[in-house]
Amino acid sequence: MTDAPRHDGRAPDQLRDIRITRNWLDHAEGSVLVEFGRTRVLCAASFTEGVPRWLKGKGTGWVTSEYEMLPRSTNTRSDRESRKGRVGGRTHEISRLIGRSLRAIIDTKALGENTIVIDCDVLQADGGTRTASITGAYVALVDALEDARAKGLIGKDASPLVDSVAAVSVGVVGGVPVADLDYPEDSTADTDMNVVMTGSGEFIEVQGTAEGAGAAFDRGVLDSLLGLATAACAQLSALQQEALTAPARERVR
Amino acid sequence: MTDAPRHDGRAPDQLRDIRITRNWLDHAEGSVLVEFGRTRVLCAASFTEGVPRWLKGKGTGWVTSEYEMLPRSTNTRSDRESRKGRVGGRTHEISRLIGRSLRAIIDTKALGENTIVIDCDVLQADGGTRTASITGAYVALVDALEDARAKGLIGKDASPLVDSVAAVSVGVVGGVPVADLDYPEDSTADTDMNVVMTGSGEFIEVQGTAEGAGAAFDRGVLDSLLGLATAACAQLSALQQEALTAPARERVR
Amino acid sequence: MTDAPRHDGRAPDQLRDIRITRNWLDHAEGSVLVEFGRTRVLCAASFTEGVPRWLKGKGTGWVTSEYEMLPRSTNTRSDRESRKGRVGGRTHEISRLIGRSLRAIIDTKALGENTIVIDCDVLQADGGTRTASITGAYVALVDALEDARAKGLIGKDASPLVDSVAAVSVGVVGGVPVADLDYPEDSTADTDMNVVMTGSGEFIEVQGTAEGAGAAFDRGVLDSLLGLATAACAQLSALQQEALTAPARERVR
Amino acid sequence: MTDAPRHDGRAPDQLRDIRITRNWLDHAEGSVLVEFGRTRVLCAASFTEGVPRWLKGKGTGWVTSEYEMLPRSTNTRSDRESRKGRVGGRTHEISRLIGRSLRAIIDTKALGENTIVIDCDVLQADGGTRTASITGAYVALVDALEDARAKGLIGKDASPLVDSVAAVSVGVVGGVPVADLDYPEDSTADTDMNVVMTGSGEFIEVQGTAEGAGAAFDRGVLDSLLGLATAACAQLSALQQEALTAPARERVR
Amino acid sequence: MTDAPRHDGRAPDQLRDIRITRNWLDHAEGSVLVEFGRTRVLCAASFTEGVPRWLKGKGTGWVTSEYEMLPRSTNTRSDRESRKGRVGGRTHEISRLIGRSLRAIIDTKALGENTIVIDCDVLQADGGTRTASITGAYVALVDALEDARAKGLIGKDASPLVDSVAAVSVGVVGGVPVADLDYPEDSTADTDMNVVMTGSGEFIEVQGTAEGAGAAFDRGVLDSLLGLATAACAQLSALQQEALTAPARERVR
Amino acid sequence: MTDAPRHDGRAPDQLRDIRITRNWLDHAEGSVLVEFGRTRVLCAASFTEGVPRWLKGKGTGWVTSEYEMLPRSTNTRSDRESRKGRVGGRTHEISRLIGRSLRAIIDTKALGENTIVIDCDVLQADGGTRTASITGAYVALVDALEDARAKGLIGKDASPLVDSVAAVSVGVVGGVPVADLDYPEDSTADTDMNVVMTGSGEFIEVQGTAEGAGAAFDRGVLDSLLGLATAACAQLSALQQEALTAPARERVR
Repeated sequence: MTDAPRHDGRAPDQLRDIRITRNWLDHAEGSVLVEFGRTRVLCAASFTEGVPRWLKGKGTGWVTSEYEMLPRSTNTRSDRESRKGRVGGRTHEISRLIGRSLRAIIDTKALGENTIVIDCDVLQADGGTRTASITGAYVALVDALEDARAKGLIGKDASPLVDSVAAVSVGVVGGVPVADLDYPEDSTADTDMNVVMTGSGEFIEVQGTAEGAGAAFDRGVLDSLLGLATAACAQLSALQQEALTAPARERVR
Repeated sequence: MTDAPRHDGRAPDQLRDIRITRNWLDHAEGSVLVEFGRTRVLCAASFTEGVPRWLKGKGTGWVTSEYEMLPRSTNTRSDRESRKGRVGGRTHEISRLIGRSLRAIIDTKALGENTIVIDCDVLQADGGTRTASITGAYVALVDALEDARAKGLIGKDASPLVDSVAAVSVGVVGGVPVADLDYPEDSTADTDMNVVMTGSGEFIEVQGTAEGAGAAFDRGVLDSLLGLATAACAQLSALQQEALTAPARERVR
Repeated sequence: MTDAPRHDGRAPDQLRDIRITRNWLDHAEGSVLVEFGRTRVLCAASFTEGVPRWLKGKGTGWVTSEYEMLPRSTNTRSDRESRKGRVGGRTHEISRLIGRSLRAIIDTKALGENTIVIDCDVLQADGGTRTASITGAYVALVDALEDARAKGLIGKDASPLVDSVAAVSVGVVGGVPVADLDYPEDSTADTDMNVVMTGSGEFIEVQGTAEGAGAAFDRGVLDSLLGLATAACAQLSALQQEALTAPARERVR
Repeated sequence: MTDAPRHDGRAPDQLRDIRITRNWLDHAEGSVLVEFGRTRVLCAASFTEGVPRWLKGKGTGWVTSEYEMLPRSTNTRSDRESRKGRVGGRTHEISRLIGRSLRAIIDTKALGENTIVIDCDVLQADGGTRTASITGAYVALVDALEDARAKGLIGKDASPLVDSVAAVSVGVVGGVPVADLDYPEDSTADTDMNVVMTGSGEFIEVQGTAEGAGAAFDRGVLDSLLGLATAACAQLSALQQEALTAPARERVR
Repeated sequence: MTDAPRHDGRAPDQLRDIRITRNWLDHAEGSVLVEFGRTRVLCAASFTEGVPRWLKGKGTGWVTSEYEMLPRSTNTRSDRESRKGRVGGRTHEISRLIGRSLRAIIDTKALGENTIVIDCDVLQADGGTRTASITGAYVALVDALEDARAKGLIGKDASPLVDSVAAVSVGVVGGVPVADLDYPEDSTADTDMNVVMTGSGEFIEVQGTAEGAGAAFDRGVLDSLLGLATAACAQLSALQQEALTAPARERVR
Repeated sequence: MTDAPRHDGRAPDQLRDIRITRNWLDHAEGSVLVEFGRTRVLCAASFTEGVPRWLKGKGTGWVTSEYEMLPRSTNTRSDRESRKGRVGGRTHEISRLIGRSLRAIIDTKALGENTIVIDCDVLQADGGTRTASITGAYVALVDALEDARAKGLIGKDASPLVDSVAAVSVGVVGGVPVADLDYPEDSTADTDMNVVMTGSGEFIEVQGTAEGAGAAFDRGVLDSLLGLATAACAQLSALQQEALTAPARERVR
């Protein structure tokens, strides 16, 4: 590593302050306000009986996600996708990533013919919204499953969860590989990688991108980034477990 | 009135717990998390220089609003309007109402050729989301104007605000006129009226509706409801003033 | 009141020439060309057996409305909403208002599992198109019900109509409260209110709006406007009854 | 020909009752309610200065058309294209046909950089709506040009009109070639042809279609249909001239 | 005719080089790459069991078509209709024409409750794309029917084909009637006609258009064009038969 | 590696037959039909002067891409995105990936204010359509740049290309890491990774995904896959160079 300080004084492998607030909402079966520094995402897990038509009668459940940014989550206001009449490519891409990440740790057979939709709405964006979303969505998902179990919608002994999942962004900023980039870092990074990992330390998604001409990276850089991500995801997994075992606010129903 | 208790024990003219948290966001020029009981709306005011094309060169500014509900703000999940590819009638209707209400207390000449968009995103819905939005949006608007003044975007002596604005719903529930209906009351009300008033006690909007066959109401009921609304809006105006004079969290920029 | 003449010489409480022509179309079960001065709306009521999916099996019917303006109904041509690919907020708002107004005088149980859609297409607009639509739609609705009764689609003794409905706009123009504003009046009014009432003199909808900064109105003005509206709706109810009892053109089938 | 009577008693070459009512609207520069029997189309011609961007600076004008059917113009109600969010293929096809037909008789150089849009809205449909639209649109177009000349928007001596245009449908019904099919005939015709002709008897469009397997037609049938169409269009041209020389209702402005 | 040479040296009645390559695709039940000179269209016939909802239970099948141009099939790139969010009028019009043309030679009763969709995607456009599409689509349709017969999806003795179909464009270029216009000819033609004919020499569609003011054509021109088209379609029918009897590439499955 | 044969007999690191046909189209400045076995993608590069509005005056060019599948490129027909009125998430995602990959090897300053759009239309899909698209798009891009240079649209000495780019999919099938998966392999793979590399052997994009519960992969697997991809991309780079130095068909203009 290097002693070049990051703009906010963090060490290269240091995460921002992470906060996971469970049951932030009263209606949703599971809900989490997850904060990675100033990035703030509201994750709401909705459990419903039944599955989409193309899955009916197969005895398996479905987990999916929809991601969206509030218009003023960003530094300058963006137009609403609902007003534009179409969902943008980036929004689609991230929604699909979150859904795939969650399905990688869910045994849909054990879920039965039930559907869980995780809405990840970015209230404030400061880099890493997709990785914060995945990290928060997992906790909301666990609570929604617990709620369903308590209501008898899934069997007492069913274990749809096969592992936990967390995600982090890593990248090369000013020549230095760092973890958990905030927006100022992200917007100047040469290379940017989002890594999704299980609690047991395996990879679910690796998405690395060289941004612009001449930014292609070699195997050595790739290896450093994967190392940073592995350590960061382990920390996030621990924080998720901590949040899940601490007592949460009661939902007002 | 009557001694029939409301389902949450409130008196007919009693508001829910109202909370107005300023600067809930860091990027927006003005932002408020407004809570009417469990109803929770995030109001973000974005100030930008310039006006829409149809206003250019006329020396006047523009204030508008966009309202939307998060998919799981409600008791059961609703589809996103962005995914459906079109904004629903109710969403349009409420966005327009909020915009009109704010323009009724803004001197757009004094604003100069600047635009303020107030995004009202319902994080949790429990009745009265449009009236909470208007009430919170006013406070966010004041902060955005103050921010613009501090940055020199509007003159030090310009006073675009000609009054304040607050709103409340009133209705007849179980035969009794009551103020600030929550969702269980709203869904069983015969008559439902949204009233928007200035701080000086005049009417900006009166929207009363009889819901379904046989629910038409006479002049006496209308008069009772207008009386309840007048008293409630006066209370809300006082709470807005209190919030605006109390010290607010510093935005992290 | 005042002796200040209106631009077309009407007294403050005087309606424009109202014409209600039944059976203007041959295919529709009920149809009315309604004219409030130069405002001309074609109201077509379509009766179909069955109800939308969300109502099936509940034993109740459904009444709804769709309002739209022809592109050259207005002084300068407007783009078609079909070409723009989306229905505007104002169109949605008015369609919903008409539907609610009609449902307020319909016993949907007595209608049985049948649907009536009232299309209100503005052929020429000169102010008050929504109130003319409601006034005309009621007459078309009555004819459609009569047609359904004649065909045996609803019982001979079923009485889905619990009252009649008419609507008028009132407003403050040049400081004077007046009824049935035409476009020149409407576009200069400080306050504009649409009032929908039953034939028995009760309120279904009251929608009053202050247009722009400093236009908020006090209780005294509100009371005057409600008085004007009550008198005007009574006249319109009488004209509806007259139209319904006069012989109508035979439909060519 | 044959002595087999048509269902409404017309001779094979006999048109329905044709009515052309000028200035049916007050705002539009030219407007016509055209009736071919029960088919009733409102044609509104809007004259505006300027041309679409792709024509700017070329010194030529533009004439175009938009056709649409009201939802209850037909025997059973159709959904609105604005609500479906897209314009159907048939609507596009007919709009384009009307526009091309009018441009075939307009010298766009002589029109100058001005645009005329002809809206053809079908109020009631009983077959032949596109040919009625073209026939009526021509008359509305003439009136709009006259209005523009009177206002000095086109030169006193400019003659944008190079001819007149009318249209008719012809087809083979029950083995017999007939002119001006109504809906019952149209829906049972083997062959259906729409023919657009100039006042001087030349062809602008010929669109013949065999409907379904085994309906292909030979040259002899084609020749008969072209003969019928030529005679019918000549009659329609005469009726257009008659309408244009008769005094029309004054527009109320 | 005349001895004025066409820009590519063809005689007035001479077709371009026509190539029909069967089984250009491996997945589709029938597929043809059809070339009329530089115009290149990929026609893929998809056979599926079942029919659209509105045809269910009537014992008849359905044949339809979708036409689209690749963005760079043309000389300068056009925007994709999928990105614009709506299908243009011309695309709709041509899709409908191809579908009607094929249905004119199909006995849908003999097809049984099966659907064939023919996708005609223009890979390169040089005039006559719609007529090339029809000509190629017929061959793909025959192969798809043969494939269905081989799989036992339609009866061994069922003969859904009642005839063959081919199409050609004819037009007046520089005063001379010519057949099979390429793009340079098409874009300068006064009159343009698309003619669809059966193998037995009857007409399915005749669509003639005068392009712009003063281009209307008389009966003599119309007769010449119909003559050219009849001869050209006969040649195309022969080429289709030749292609269908020659051995085709095996599909790789 | 292993001696378990792949279903088509290839060795784990063996590519399918790769064919790169330049100038497959006549209009496009660069065009390639690229084939990876049965996967067949038409890549058309369109060079236009000028840049999108948000880049104007910055002295840099723009390279972007649009990917789409023909409806019958797949084993069973898919609906067209143009008809559905919206572009799907997968299509957006891949279009963005191709664009980013090309921009990583383009010096947009050296390109000047010019835009290159690469349309990648999948004519037949058998796995690896996105990696075939990138591999073919590069060759079309080189030809389009050469064409622009020949026309003097970019300077004779300008070198916008800073490297070459190729892409391949790798994955774990039946426990064995393999390169260039076809559809049967892709649909059964546990892990699927798309890797985009420069000709000089550096990474532009790494996108690895575990498909479904329990498919998360460890660092060892990731390392094997990266190794396979590196070797495969080197082969593809060589084939691209070979295609670019071989003589190509002349475009017919």
